[in-house]
Amino acid sequence: MIDIHSISTHCTCTEFVGTAVLDTIGLVISGIDDTLLEKMNIGKKYHVLGLFSSRTGAAGQLTAMDDAVKATNTELLSYDLPRDTKGWGGHGNYIVIGGHDVSDVRHAIELALELTNRNAGEVYISQSGHLEFAYSASAGDVLVKAFGAKPNKAFGFFAGSPAAIGLVMADRGVKAAGVEIISYMTPSVGTSHSNEVILAVCGDADAVKEAVLEARQVGLELLIAMGSYPEIPGTPYL
Amino acid sequence: MIDIHSISTHCTCTEFVGTAVLDTIGLVISGIDDTLLEKMNIGKKYHVLGLFSSRTGAAGQLTAMDDAVKATNTELLSYDLPRDTKGWGGHGNYIVIGGHDVSDVRHAIELALELTNRNAGEVYISQSGHLEFAYSASAGDVLVKAFGAKPNKAFGFFAGSPAAIGLVMADRGVKAAGVEIISYMTPSVGTSHSNEVILAVCGDADAVKEAVLEARQVGLELLIAMGSYPEIPGTPYL
Amino acid sequence: MIDIHSISTHCTCTEFVGTAVLDTIGLVISGIDDTLLEKMNIGKKYHVLGLFSSRTGAAGQLTAMDDAVKATNTELLSYDLPRDTKGWGGHGNYIVIGGHDVSDVRHAIELALELTNRNAGEVYISQSGHLEFAYSASAGDVLVKAFGAKPNKAFGFFAGSPAAIGLVMADRGVKAAGVEIISYMTPSVGTSHSNEVILAVCGDADAVKEAVLEARQVGLELLIAMGSYPEIPGTPYL
Repeated sequence: MIDIHSISTHCTCTEFVGTAVLDTIGLVISGIDDTLLEKMNIGKKYHVLGLFSSRTGAAGQLTAMDDAVKATNTELLSYDLPRDTKGWGGHGNYIVIGGHDVSDVRHAIELALELTNRNAGEVYISQSGHLEFAYSASAGDVLVKAFGAKPNKAFGFFAGSPAAIGLVMADRGVKAAGVEIISYMTPSVGTSHSNEVILAVCGDADAVKEAVLEARQVGLELLIAMGSYPEIPGTPYL
Repeated sequence: MIDIHSISTHCTCTEFVGTAVLDTIGLVISGIDDTLLEKMNIGKKYHVLGLFSSRTGAAGQLTAMDDAVKATNTELLSYDLPRDTKGWGGHGNYIVIGGHDVSDVRHAIELALELTNRNAGEVYISQSGHLEFAYSASAGDVLVKAFGAKPNKAFGFFAGSPAAIGLVMADRGVKAAGVEIISYMTPSVGTSHSNEVILAVCGDADAVKEAVLEARQVGLELLIAMGSYPEIPGTPYL
Repeated sequence: MIDIHSISTHCTCTEFVGTAVLDTIGLVISGIDDTLLEKMNIGKKYHVLGLFSSRTGAAGQLTAMDDAVKATNTELLSYDLPRDTKGWGGHGNYIVIGGHDVSDVRHAIELALELTNRNAGEVYISQSGHLEFAYSASAGDVLVKAFGAKPNKAFGFFAGSPAAIGLVMADRGVKAAGVEIISYMTPSVGTSHSNEVILAVCGDADAVKEAVLEARQVGLELLIAMGSYPEIPGTPYL
């Protein structure tokens, strides 16, 4: 019978890169099996795959990966938004990137883990619900593919749960500054049935940041009105 | 850096109406942003929106909103059933209503919050699963749109989780009284992949109530057989 | 008002068969209501239905039911994979079987409950995620319908959450032995938005078992690297 306690927490698997907050793990497969690659529906260009996934969070990690892919010779191949958050009302994430060189891909995953720890500063989780914010001064390929961001333009994201909070955040964010809506998601449309309204916006950097900050302010006020203060799995950076 | 503890739990946002059990919040937007309204796919008739959402519960809140809309000059614009219940196997809800007058919409949301506290008396949550029941002597527009209820006829709803319990409840409820099945939902059909079988029925008021009570009796017996007594976030009223 | 504490935990409902780990309940309806049967979309061949569902687990229970159906004069009519696992990133299950004889169906459900307790030995649940494994030396009708298994051939199943762990398990499992991929599932494809990558394989019995054991080894190493040892709701049997 297998004795799980004989397995060390200091992982020596070749695939293991590291972990981050929000139950995030980063991995690299240096030569994916051909029959498996075929099933993955991500093309056959790359055999070196970087894998990244979390139980909680989506925009923070996709924004982290956006920066990581920009900084390395890698490419986004797929992303999924499982309905997760460990009992809360939102998403986790599962992201696959590809590259030709193991060290490139490994470096991208390392960067994404590091930036996930930073971006987790804009996740707020109370007993009643949660809020998530993301901001990028210059969206890259990952944010373009995931949320319809415009290349090299500022990108802002705000999600609120229970969903009604998210709609007030969306309304206040859009009214606060001249930004353009690029994604609008609800429990039935664009999410995996999460209990969120989500808005992604683009525009001038100052306007986008102002929209995110306004959405954050009203979102926190409403979430706290539900009776408990949120915990923050990082340090707010916006 | 934002100091979340500087935000009061006594919300002064103009949008805030109130909260209720089951992590429910009620909000009003008095003049929704036009670009956001366009994305919402709810028509352009109303600029005053009432928002209502909960982490846990669907039929109780939709029945509450049915009564609230009937009593005010408002209209249901959309409803979503996120996969939520804070780690349990069911749904939360996200409901949007519209009106021409802020005080009408605000009053509808207030009523829906109040009735949600009452209807939560027919939600039963144990360590293993949950049951939800709803009954209306005379279905209005919300129950017609959400569950195919027949206008002004009695409406009954019973949901059980794990799903197998829900099917026995459905079978017993239908056999107990001459009622007509108007909605039948399973994890794959009609739900957001919740772990429930759900039945909604219509018919004569006495028959519908008898069906609901029979479903409740067998549902409770089976849920309690799984090893723990449920908690009830209100006072049973049926 | 109903007094739930007047209801005994020793259920005397005629439908009740028993319970098993992972919040599993087994039930039999000896003569399903005709109008309900019509809505169920499972044909009209059988009026005796066996019901089986759990909050947590899918492959273990479907493999249990595969053996139960093989051993009795019953047939799989439907299976659903709700997004559940009580706050974790995977599925529960809801399985309906049919038969002509109440004692046959009851016996099948009893067997499935018993085998679920055994199969739960290959479910590993940590603070960060979970793993599930299943193996059958000879797949029957249930595994054929649920996962595309080949009749009478060995069947192996491995699921990992967060999803990235599941892909490494898939890659290692397939590389370890000459097995054929029969199902590949991700949060977006084939699951109910669970946070898993799942692989089902077939082939020679020794090769399939080797693939499952290799996937289990790397899966446990990665899950434990996330910081906590998993709990096992049974005794590992592979």
